[in-house]
Amino acid sequence: MKVMILGADGYLGWPLSLRLMARGHEVIGVDNFATRKSVKEVGSDSAIPILSMENRVKAAKDIHGYNMKFYRGDITKYGVLHKIIKEEKPDTVVHFAEQRSAPYSMINAKHAAYTMSNNIIGTINLIYAIMDIDPKIHIVKMGTMGEFGTPNFDIPESPFVDVEINGRKDRITTPKFAGSWYHWTKVHDTNNILFANKAWKITTTDIMQGPVYGTRTKEITDKKLHSRFDFDEVWGTVVNRFTVESVLGIPLTAYGAGGQIRGYLSLEDSMEALRLLVENPPESGSYRSANQFVELLSINEIADIIQKAAKKHGIDIGVEHMENPRIEADRHYYNPEIKVLPALGFHPKLKMADLSEQLVKDVMPYKARMNKFRERILPHTNWRRVENAR
Amino acid sequence: MKVMILGADGYLGWPLSLRLMARGHEVIGVDNFATRKSVKEVGSDSAIPILSMENRVKAAKDIHGYNMKFYRGDITKYGVLHKIIKEEKPDTVVHFAEQRSAPYSMINAKHAAYTMSNNIIGTINLIYAIMDIDPKIHIVKMGTMGEFGTPNFDIPESPFVDVEINGRKDRITTPKFAGSWYHWTKVHDTNNILFANKAWKITTTDIMQGPVYGTRTKEITDKKLHSRFDFDEVWGTVVNRFTVESVLGIPLTAYGAGGQIRGYLSLEDSMEALRLLVENPPESGSYRSANQFVELLSINEIADIIQKAAKKHGIDIGVEHMENPRIEADRHYYNPEIKVLPALGFHPKLKMADLSEQLVKDVMPYKARMNKFRERILPHTNWRRVENAR
Repeated sequence: MKVMILGADGYLGWPLSLRLMARGHEVIGVDNFATRKSVKEVGSDSAIPILSMENRVKAAKDIHGYNMKFYRGDITKYGVLHKIIKEEKPDTVVHFAEQRSAPYSMINAKHAAYTMSNNIIGTINLIYAIMDIDPKIHIVKMGTMGEFGTPNFDIPESPFVDVEINGRKDRITTPKFAGSWYHWTKVHDTNNILFANKAWKITTTDIMQGPVYGTRTKEITDKKLHSRFDFDEVWGTVVNRFTVESVLGIPLTAYGAGGQIRGYLSLEDSMEALRLLVENPPESGSYRSANQFVELLSINEIADIIQKAAKKHGIDIGVEHMENPRIEADRHYYNPEIKVLPALGFHPKLKMADLSEQLVKDVMPYKARMNKFRERILPHTNWRRVENAR
Repeated sequence: MKVMILGADGYLGWPLSLRLMARGHEVIGVDNFATRKSVKEVGSDSAIPILSMENRVKAAKDIHGYNMKFYRGDITKYGVLHKIIKEEKPDTVVHFAEQRSAPYSMINAKHAAYTMSNNIIGTINLIYAIMDIDPKIHIVKMGTMGEFGTPNFDIPESPFVDVEINGRKDRITTPKFAGSWYHWTKVHDTNNILFANKAWKITTTDIMQGPVYGTRTKEITDKKLHSRFDFDEVWGTVVNRFTVESVLGIPLTAYGAGGQIRGYLSLEDSMEALRLLVENPPESGSYRSANQFVELLSINEIADIIQKAAKKHGIDIGVEHMENPRIEADRHYYNPEIKVLPALGFHPKLKMADLSEQLVKDVMPYKARMNKFRERILPHTNWRRVENAR
């Protein structure tokens, strides 16, 4: 299979490139290096050093014998994206090329507008490019479980649900209510894709993924093949942030009461899930929504897991509950359905408690490096504060 | 009251400027003249000639003694919008500054992306600008009844509804499913505004308006004060298009079976509704959704009204049902609620059947001018066709 990965330089894009090449697929990577630039912009960097794309591609060749083709390009320019897809004619386009940080989108007007425009236009361009070049191309699009917010109903994988409103029945799109501009762009994308599917029968897998953590996959067998690992308040998700905090001796920064529950999965399990979705496209012309996570955990449970893991490395670390800078409930119902991936043979191998000790171990060698960005860990971006609206 | 109108040069923006000045309000207009440019871009023009903004403002002064201040500016540039609002400190900002044509948004990738970016970024910038300068400013935002599509439930004015999904109850945003990229931008705007209201308590009136038709308002007492009147397949809504067709002797171009029902209102009634919403803001910090229309009519009923009006002017015109270029049901349930405006004292004066004869008469003097753009009336933009995706 020939697979194009938009956002191939990212946390997920790079290991997925390796995984698909390991499976014998031809991989074409595309990236504009926006994440590298934007992480530096907030004064931070990946905890684990990563090579340039050029050297990564070379290392993948030297170490595993993989041949990866790469284009530097910004998919918000229609001509750029169209040209690459026309040249390569992939069977599948995996679309990870979106600004992926919720706090980054909440910094100010400029960052909100950039996130809206970058994410929405990239997806619109992709839809039109495949419609023009080959409408049979399967789009695998990264959405987020955060599109749903924390509803009181069980989160279905179907894009539509049956409801009764004031005594009359209708079929509606599965209700969503996001908690940041970033998360809203994914809702807008989903709506745009559903419309394009209705209008033109594009074939799409829309992945509603929970937060991913971890440093390793089967193919990351060498330092040269590491994926980025962000830990600052803007770019690091909670597990990565807690891991780095424990190594640096900073009490784990739990936002609010810590009862926020999400569906987490490891990098290795995410790769396996993504591979299955790429290798098993839905029926041509159909829209498939897939919830992607392994276990439901609260912030407090995660803090507990990381505390225990740190203890095994002789580190005694506390938890500090701070005012929640985010707009979210910290006590709520949460029960997302997961049937699509298991039906494709998804058998997750790892739970967070199994992986946490290794996680702490993996970042330890970079203590001095992480310490440089120490002041970027505590929240600076308060989503609720009016003066932040500047 | 000091009211800023973003999009003051438009079909609604200009007459609303006049109406609010007639009511003694101070009006600040802002526009980047995008509509004038985009109508020319598709090879068309307003049926009724309109003056430049500079001359309009002068005419309003000469004829009515109104003093209108005007800024030329693009609100998708945050700095531009921020500066104007900071300088003027309005009580209310009426936001009409969005690309308003559904067919225009469906032309190709470039037009889809422009519509998404222009509309969404303008609203994001407005939210941030008022948050920074004065969060008490009332935003009156033009949405569309088209956000709802044609659901099988009665369309409520409340932004949230109670539903049961797979046996569990929740309160969700009122379901929406739009039929063009343009309409989707309004859904995305609504979601973004609801989020900003939740996060920061911005005060907003979100207007879900049906198609507006007509040439006159109480203040348009002179040719120099006319508002634009578009009739081509891209920029003209159905009533205006039918009116011009009847004058040019072109059979009325009804899309599909003609059973599409929408809620229509005249320009005069729209002005009165908008004035009421501006003069009566909702409770500070709240989000108010208002459905805005006067009568529900199907395409076939409108064709009938215009046919009869043309007959009174001695014109015998047929109706031609053509393949529907749009993505919409042409037979459906439609029952939108309307309570907010009547509670403010909205008493619509005119039905389409009362106004249609005058409408035909008003465009007759411009027959030669309209005839120049004759070939722009039949649909060129087929939303369903794959080759249109270029």
